[in-house]
Amino acid sequence: MSITTPKGFVASGFASGIKASGALDLALVATDDGAPVPAAATFTTNLAAAAPVHVSRDHLGATGGRAAAVLVSSGNANAATGAQGRADAERMCALVADGLGVDATEVLVCSTGLIGIPLPMGPIEAGVPALVAARSSSAQAAEDAATGILTTDGGRKEVLVEGPGFTMAGMAKGAGMLAPNMATMLAFLTTDAAVEPNALAALLRIAVGDSFNTLTVDGCTSTNDTVTLMASGRAGPVHDGVLVDAATEACVGLARLMAEDAEGASRIAHVRVTGAVSDGEAHQAARKVADSLLVKCSLNGEDPYWGRVVSDLGSAGVGFDMDQVAVAYGGIDVCREGVAVAHDEGAVAAHMASKTVDIHCRLGLGDGVGVAMTVDLGYGYIDENRGTS
Amino acid sequence: MSITTPKGFVASGFASGIKASGALDLALVATDDGAPVPAAATFTTNLAAAAPVHVSRDHLGATGGRAAAVLVSSGNANAATGAQGRADAERMCALVADGLGVDATEVLVCSTGLIGIPLPMGPIEAGVPALVAARSSSAQAAEDAATGILTTDGGRKEVLVEGPGFTMAGMAKGAGMLAPNMATMLAFLTTDAAVEPNALAALLRIAVGDSFNTLTVDGCTSTNDTVTLMASGRAGPVHDGVLVDAATEACVGLARLMAEDAEGASRIAHVRVTGAVSDGEAHQAARKVADSLLVKCSLNGEDPYWGRVVSDLGSAGVGFDMDQVAVAYGGIDVCREGVAVAHDEGAVAAHMASKTVDIHCRLGLGDGVGVAMTVDLGYGYIDENRGTS
Repeated sequence: MSITTPKGFVASGFASGIKASGALDLALVATDDGAPVPAAATFTTNLAAAAPVHVSRDHLGATGGRAAAVLVSSGNANAATGAQGRADAERMCALVADGLGVDATEVLVCSTGLIGIPLPMGPIEAGVPALVAARSSSAQAAEDAATGILTTDGGRKEVLVEGPGFTMAGMAKGAGMLAPNMATMLAFLTTDAAVEPNALAALLRIAVGDSFNTLTVDGCTSTNDTVTLMASGRAGPVHDGVLVDAATEACVGLARLMAEDAEGASRIAHVRVTGAVSDGEAHQAARKVADSLLVKCSLNGEDPYWGRVVSDLGSAGVGFDMDQVAVAYGGIDVCREGVAVAHDEGAVAAHMASKTVDIHCRLGLGDGVGVAMTVDLGYGYIDENRGTS
Repeated sequence: MSITTPKGFVASGFASGIKASGALDLALVATDDGAPVPAAATFTTNLAAAAPVHVSRDHLGATGGRAAAVLVSSGNANAATGAQGRADAERMCALVADGLGVDATEVLVCSTGLIGIPLPMGPIEAGVPALVAARSSSAQAAEDAATGILTTDGGRKEVLVEGPGFTMAGMAKGAGMLAPNMATMLAFLTTDAAVEPNALAALLRIAVGDSFNTLTVDGCTSTNDTVTLMASGRAGPVHDGVLVDAATEACVGLARLMAEDAEGASRIAHVRVTGAVSDGEAHQAARKVADSLLVKCSLNGEDPYWGRVVSDLGSAGVGFDMDQVAVAYGGIDVCREGVAVAHDEGAVAAHMASKTVDIHCRLGLGDGVGVAMTVDLGYGYIDENRGTS
């Protein structure tokens, strides 16, 4: 399970000193021969997007969707850093380009960490050449890359999907990024399938929409969120549908690892809404419930307080009829037709105490379905986020 | 400072046994002679609105905006209780009507407490007659009423506004009701000014919009939120503008008491957005910042992490230009033109440690202004909300 498992890729990690702890803080994923290959990315919709987001988007535009490498730094987001931040992000690409012998526009760049602090370019100027020199297809190099992108994460997040005649690998950074928390989510995918840039961009959009985006509220992304996908082509062409499935499986796997690692969380909840007027309304309702502080507190306390769920559904801005609504925890109805129903309280209590809680809301109005994922709200989240030092 | 200070009103409180603790759990505000007077109310927009909300709205409609009394119960919300809940709410009105010798439609009813549990009618059947019998204009009776409406509140919330020749008094229940928390907010106002039902309804809408609604996200209200205003007329006619100002002052005072009593909160933050494209966008942006879990955690940790504020502004769905944005804490700029600026860190630290924090965001795009109020997120909130027992 490594970002270099797909044929044609190398990787590396390096501790440049951005992080005072001395932990790995630079990561590289590159083609093994330095040649640019089809590449695609999805970026945050936040209008306060960080400098590297602007630079990477511009680079992909300039190359028509090709890249030879992705450089990642962790510990400083290079966000809210103005023109200097933009210049610093361009400089990071140039440093990699010099090492690989490619054009700077053929390098993508991502950063994650604190916002509003100028990037420490001294460590980066010295570190990137060493990072590039260390690139290799070894498992250790890939592990270093997957480590170098982390910040508050509990551990590396890696995924490998083996398709018929090709592989797709991914690594990600993100903990506590569940809505409405906006900590940065980064994910990097590689595949040895052969696919053209436009098709690659299209399939990445689908995969991200069906995975990471179920974790976050629309538009409510951090300043730095980025997902990239590079395709070396070494395994030859792969049917579009197969590739979409592989990319979705990889992204869902990484999203699940992020949810499981959410800062301070003790359990995950899958909120499913069915019977809405439309899929759009079902998603909106599911997200309303998933974002509810009170629901998240109840999850922490293992309390099946469905009244809060119903109250969120009723104020989600979607079609709703109190006399039709039903709520089930772990498949056990606790509310039907808008009122409490007798149920196996022991079974519900056991489900609430599990690591993964299912909340199913049936609106009884139509065929719309939607899901959202969330985590409980406990002391750990506050401990992690009350200060930046 | 008492709900019975305006001429023409009596009040009472009673411990019926709805609350296992034996605390006061019924409250009454009524006209002293039992005659219906002009009355108005604003209700939650939640489509899961509780039975008493439906009943009170219907009663005001039936009477054309007149009421002789408002009955309040605490400890059980009578929400998500179906047809039985509706019948129970009607019965509560009938019990008061019997005691006062008025029609049941001339009685309004509100409940607050847990959702989804049938109302215990035994205690209520016995308690309401005793409550009605205990009504008086005494300070003690008013105090009992203001206590009987409370649930998790830290204490009574009362306000008195003295206008030229008239008075307006209010009492409220609500703690931790700041968005996106949806704990119930109830407020009851009395005045001895003479004003017709339609004018009363209009001025209450204005007062609520300029007070309680700055604390909550649009539509994101609890199942039971209600504000009522009764006008005895004993002090004679009062100019509309004067009365609007008095009602707004009373509501703002009660809203502030609620914010100060927010469950587990250690400080309040006033988020002000100026320079937005429009007032609507400024409000939307202010609410986005005020609702941010990360901003609320920063407030708990006294951390002036403006990067989170900027990230929220950038994803608020409003016009935003990173190169124009400025953020100030307590009037001290920490960010200008989208980047950090040198500032008096000691002064900012002192401000962050105070009970009331001011966050001013300048978007630099237009003349739109908006405000929102929030509180920090600490252990106390979780302690209060993780379980219902």
